[in-house]
Amino acid sequence: MSIESGKRPSESAAESCYLVMPQHANDSGIAFGGTIMAWIDMLAAIVARRHCEHEVVTVNIDSLSFIEPIMIGEHACLKASVNYVGRTSLEVGVKVFRECPYAKASSVATKAYLTFVALGEDRRPIPVPKLIPETPDEIRRFESAKHRVESRIKLRELLKTIHQ
Amino acid sequence: MSIESGKRPSESAAESCYLVMPQHANDSGIAFGGTIMAWIDMLAAIVARRHCEHEVVTVNIDSLSFIEPIMIGEHACLKASVNYVGRTSLEVGVKVFRECPYAKASSVATKAYLTFVALGEDRRPIPVPKLIPETPDEIRRFESAKHRVESRIKLRELLKTIHQ
Amino acid sequence: MSIESGKRPSESAAESCYLVMPQHANDSGIAFGGTIMAWIDMLAAIVARRHCEHEVVTVNIDSLSFIEPIMIGEHACLKASVNYVGRTSLEVGVKVFRECPYAKASSVATKAYLTFVALGEDRRPIPVPKLIPETPDEIRRFESAKHRVESRIKLRELLKTIHQ
Amino acid sequence: MSIESGKRPSESAAESCYLVMPQHANDSGIAFGGTIMAWIDMLAAIVARRHCEHEVVTVNIDSLSFIEPIMIGEHACLKASVNYVGRTSLEVGVKVFRECPYAKASSVATKAYLTFVALGEDRRPIPVPKLIPETPDEIRRFESAKHRVESRIKLRELLKTIHQ
Amino acid sequence: MSIESGKRPSESAAESCYLVMPQHANDSGIAFGGTIMAWIDMLAAIVARRHCEHEVVTVNIDSLSFIEPIMIGEHACLKASVNYVGRTSLEVGVKVFRECPYAKASSVATKAYLTFVALGEDRRPIPVPKLIPETPDEIRRFESAKHRVESRIKLRELLKTIHQ
Amino acid sequence: MSIESGKRPSESAAESCYLVMPQHANDSGIAFGGTIMAWIDMLAAIVARRHCEHEVVTVNIDSLSFIEPIMIGEHACLKASVNYVGRTSLEVGVKVFRECPYAKASSVATKAYLTFVALGEDRRPIPVPKLIPETPDEIRRFESAKHRVESRIKLRELLKTIHQ
Repeated sequence: MSIESGKRPSESAAESCYLVMPQHANDSGIAFGGTIMAWIDMLAAIVARRHCEHEVVTVNIDSLSFIEPIMIGEHACLKASVNYVGRTSLEVGVKVFRECPYAKASSVATKAYLTFVALGEDRRPIPVPKLIPETPDEIRRFESAKHRVESRIKLRELLKTIHQ
Repeated sequence: MSIESGKRPSESAAESCYLVMPQHANDSGIAFGGTIMAWIDMLAAIVARRHCEHEVVTVNIDSLSFIEPIMIGEHACLKASVNYVGRTSLEVGVKVFRECPYAKASSVATKAYLTFVALGEDRRPIPVPKLIPETPDEIRRFESAKHRVESRIKLRELLKTIHQ
Repeated sequence: MSIESGKRPSESAAESCYLVMPQHANDSGIAFGGTIMAWIDMLAAIVARRHCEHEVVTVNIDSLSFIEPIMIGEHACLKASVNYVGRTSLEVGVKVFRECPYAKASSVATKAYLTFVALGEDRRPIPVPKLIPETPDEIRRFESAKHRVESRIKLRELLKTIHQ
Repeated sequence: MSIESGKRPSESAAESCYLVMPQHANDSGIAFGGTIMAWIDMLAAIVARRHCEHEVVTVNIDSLSFIEPIMIGEHACLKASVNYVGRTSLEVGVKVFRECPYAKASSVATKAYLTFVALGEDRRPIPVPKLIPETPDEIRRFESAKHRVESRIKLRELLKTIHQ
Repeated sequence: MSIESGKRPSESAAESCYLVMPQHANDSGIAFGGTIMAWIDMLAAIVARRHCEHEVVTVNIDSLSFIEPIMIGEHACLKASVNYVGRTSLEVGVKVFRECPYAKASSVATKAYLTFVALGEDRRPIPVPKLIPETPDEIRRFESAKHRVESRIKLRELLKTIHQ
Repeated sequence: MSIESGKRPSESAAESCYLVMPQHANDSGIAFGGTIMAWIDMLAAIVARRHCEHEVVTVNIDSLSFIEPIMIGEHACLKASVNYVGRTSLEVGVKVFRECPYAKASSVATKAYLTFVALGEDRRPIPVPKLIPETPDEIRRFESAKHRVESRIKLRELLKTIHQ
């Protein structure tokens, strides 16, 4: 698959907005972590499917941080896009914004990095289209995702040395 | 409330994407009408709350057309924005796009017009911010919503004449 | 299909009662519009399937008015019946009663008219059984549904004239 | 509370119809037992609340038999009414009919007897209105519920004797 | 199937813990009976499937008692095991413990006995593996389940005599 | 809080079993990632609340790997326990076993490490009880969680050096 067949992050980026209701909340009136995770996984899968034009499976959630709670009555607005693409896997980043509709305030409540693999007809991994980051933001996200991938490899080697 | 305090449709427009799964489907494997309606109502309410910066209630769904079914495994992508604003009510238009992720095809599956009223502390209707349509699309949507509102009044008068 | 094969509205009419719980409510403790719509669509589909004895799809919700909110702890009682039948389509009317169980009070909270089409094996519209309204109420509903259908046609013609 | 303040079973009887969809089914495509139970409990509670005009709690499900499975695409139609009333408790009977909408066939799929207690402001049991069965069916249901209550007492005594 | 192929209750016993959230509660803030029943039925089915290594269906819930309410914010912890095995049916007992996490208190809130039948390829009942109770608790549960089964038969005979 | 007030992992460990049904599955008939995450988060929260005897919030999911899919009709059995305790935070490890009930096969399908913080009345972090690992397994989990925490700190320092 040549670079020509690559795609820009904007071609697959997606958004979703939810109004947090009691059915989404835990016993303290804040959006339940598990509900937010389900929203994140669904939107990230949509982005990965758009990029790959193939079935995908979540293989890993590298890091998912709950920074701020989102209360019943507030909006949870998710933005997801492809950050980085390997040979058969891709990283999708998702930010969940907490929006207080009557106060015009908005802040990042949760963020997560998910790794997907694209599957062929035989349900085995297949190569995924290249990513062509264009805007400064897209390039920054690409670089830091690449850095995360490399650091994880370095860390694994470092840990081996330490353990010897 | 002066024109200065008006808002552009883009300030409150919102999107949501869902991956249609068995839990959303009816017995024929297509997204259940009631599920799509619930998605539409939630997103339209978010848009109305953003525009009004107040609690809102759905008072009417003027027309909701199911044009094409959306199958399990496809994406349902909703786009909603304020079309028109009266004194205490506003019309939000929602389009649901059916997206076949592996074929890059997308078409309008459902569209709906919902009327909301903004509520004050005492839960009585309050004036809502004016709408400032700017792009040709926004102006066209504003004009046809205005036309819909006027036609409904004309229709009611016409029916009276017919009945006399 | 001859008039003999027609059906009375009472042969397909249906009811459903729900106890409004937090899982059905929005952030103000009232039944969420989207939940009520899903209840309406499901019951109307049951009525249409009973009348047609075939698979049906919702093609349109002509008008759905939220007249009164239903609170957590109250009952939402739906009544649905076929109002009118065209050649391949039928109109089902649904009323949602708000019932305050401890006060014996009941009032109409929501009403809606839904249009369904019956589908044959090849998923194309097929003729539906005629409707034989018998009681004064059934006849009145039939007449006003017929009137609604004709008015919509008149309105479309009127709008054309206005636009010329 | 005198007999005058009693109520007929028809004053509180209720019905509900569901279209069985994948979200209600188990892995064999039949309505999941737990889903049917939740439908039964909700409808029975509505009936008990209507009869008592007070908050109620389920204290016991005496017997719940699954006679026939209900498949995805079929209708589950529940009918519930008060069978019998003690001093502070009442028995509600629920029948679930399996309805095959395209074949006009209907049969009893599940039946259950639930015992509720009415609660006062202090959440302690309070007397419930008497029941006035009128139709032959209502009288038969009253007699067999009374018989069930008495048999349970006899059984408990019998078991004591056996154990001595 | 010889005694050698029997199984101990511990081989199929299972547990589940739920944090009661608003989506599980009724309008009084306590876990809705129908939700608890759905949890019970699912866990009991898992136990029955483990014991039988075959598809099973719930045929009866003999008795289900709600002893104490479980509030939003508390834990509902279920324990289920096979109590008794007939030729083609088996009884699974489930206890639901109410756990107040901040007070270390725990009590039995609900208990239920469910009867399952194992189904073969042709969906007809098949023999189920024998049960080998070992611990004093298992033997006690086996004896009282056997007693329940026999009492039900005695009761049916007793009722016949009474009715003659 | 002295060592005496510490707790063993077994005092708070918890299990949950789910039968995967269509409502939990994605469009390929496998348990949806988001559903599994919601199950993981709920069980881990229960364990953290048991250990802390206080309200807790998820602050981070460090790593969540989907190793094998779980199909409709299979069992998802989760086991969770406290691995490690810091001053105001604790790590809970969760393993999800995929169990094929008719084949007696079981394998690890998903595993995750979640970090929680305990909150006091004023919703600010409070010290959590110490952890007293006893069995070889508990000690191994404690050591590798401690190692994970330290490695993350080392990694952060390493990355700083690399970046200089």
